[in-house]
Amino acid sequence: MELKVFQRVMASNDAIANEYRAVLKKHNITVFNFMSAPGSGKTSLLEWTINEFKDKMRIAVIEGDIKGDLDAQRILKTGVPVYQINTDGACHLDAFMISQVLPKIDLNAFDVLFIENIGNLVCPAEFYIGADYNVMLLSTPEGSDKPTKYPLMFSRADVLLINKIDLIPYVNFNFEELTNSLNEIKPGLKILKISCKTGEGLKDWYQWLSYATNVNLVRP
Amino acid sequence: MELKVFQRVMASNDAIANEYRAVLKKHNITVFNFMSAPGSGKTSLLEWTINEFKDKMRIAVIEGDIKGDLDAQRILKTGVPVYQINTDGACHLDAFMISQVLPKIDLNAFDVLFIENIGNLVCPAEFYIGADYNVMLLSTPEGSDKPTKYPLMFSRADVLLINKIDLIPYVNFNFEELTNSLNEIKPGLKILKISCKTGEGLKDWYQWLSYATNVNLVRP
Repeated sequence: MELKVFQRVMASNDAIANEYRAVLKKHNITVFNFMSAPGSGKTSLLEWTINEFKDKMRIAVIEGDIKGDLDAQRILKTGVPVYQINTDGACHLDAFMISQVLPKIDLNAFDVLFIENIGNLVCPAEFYIGADYNVMLLSTPEGSDKPTKYPLMFSRADVLLINKIDLIPYVNFNFEELTNSLNEIKPGLKILKISCKTGEGLKDWYQWLSYATNVNLVRP
Repeated sequence: MELKVFQRVMASNDAIANEYRAVLKKHNITVFNFMSAPGSGKTSLLEWTINEFKDKMRIAVIEGDIKGDLDAQRILKTGVPVYQINTDGACHLDAFMISQVLPKIDLNAFDVLFIENIGNLVCPAEFYIGADYNVMLLSTPEGSDKPTKYPLMFSRADVLLINKIDLIPYVNFNFEELTNSLNEIKPGLKILKISCKTGEGLKDWYQWLSYATNVNLVRP
C-alpha cells in the first residue's frame, strides 16, 4: 500500500520534471542541482561562482530551504535574481515545487539556472528535479567515510567538490579512503578539491562549469 | 490521500514506540537518541562516552546506518554490544525498526541504551523512537545559522552539544547568532561546548548524562 503510493509519487514527480525540462531545453537553459549535507558550503560556492560568471552568463537561482531565506539574502547581494522555495518541513526539493516556481521566471532572460537543494545527504538524491547536472559537495570535516555510508547521492553526482580543503590539517580526512569507496560507487566520478574560504581550486570548478554548460548547449 | 497515509504511518509509529518504551521503563533502561547532520561526530562522542561509563553502567548501542557497519565496527572496539540497523536507503530510524531489534537484546543486562540515528538534520527528528532523551550535535564547521534553517530537530533536543570547538579559529561560527535563534526555537535548551578531538568540555557532558540517567530512574 505505502510502496504503491511511493511509486505513484515518484512517477508523477518524474513526469513533471521531464515536462518542464523540455521547456528549459527549448530556452537553452542549463540547470545545475547543488546537493550536500547541511553546512558543506553550497551557498558559499554559489556566491563565488555567480561573482565569477555573472558578466558572462545570465544566471537565475532557486533557493530551497525548509524555513527562512538566509541563503537567498546572501545570493541576492551578488545581484542575480533568486526564487525562494520554503518546503515547510520537507527534507528535499521535488519536481512539483520547481514547477510551481518556473512560471515566475522569464525563461528568455537566462542561460543558467542554479538550484540549491535542501542540506541533506540522503533525500534530495531520491528526487529527480530535471537538472542537467547534479553538483555534489562534501566538506572535509564531514569525513572521508561518507560515500560508504550514504552511497545514493554520490552515485547520482556528475561532479564532486571536496570543499573546505583549508581545514585538512585539522580534521581526519583520508583521500585514499574516499577514492577507494567512490571507485565502487561511481567509478570515474570527477572530483575537484576546493576551498570556498581561500578560493583554492575554484579555477578548476569554473572550467568544469563552463565546459558543462557548453556541452549542454550542443547536446540534442 | 497522501497526507492521510502519512498520519496513519505516524500514529502507528508512535503506538509502537510507546509500547516498547513501557517495556524498557520496566527494565529501568534509559534510552538516548543521538541525532545530527552527517559527520558531526555522533560516533566519536559515543566512543568517548562509552569508554568513560562502561565500568559504571551496562551499555548497549543500536547503530542506525543507511548502509554498512563502519560505525558499529568502531563502537565494537569499546567492548560494548552493538546492534546494527541498516535502513537500506531510508533517511531516519523509526519505531518499527527499533522494535525489530529489541527482542535480540537481553533487557535485564543493560542500564542504558544509546541509539545512533542516521546522519540527517531533518527527518530523524520527525520520528519518535521512544527515547527518554534526544541528544543533538551540531559541529562548528556546519555553521551557526543551522537552527534558523532546520528548526525541528533543535526544538526536539533535550541537550545540544556544539562539537568540534577546536576548529573555531578556522571556521565562521557565531555563538551569538546560535543562541539568539535557539532562544526563539527552544528557550532554555542546555548547550554544551565540546571537542571529540581534544576531549575539551566532555566532563560537562558526562555530568549531564549521569544526571539525566539518574533522573530517569526516579521518574515515574
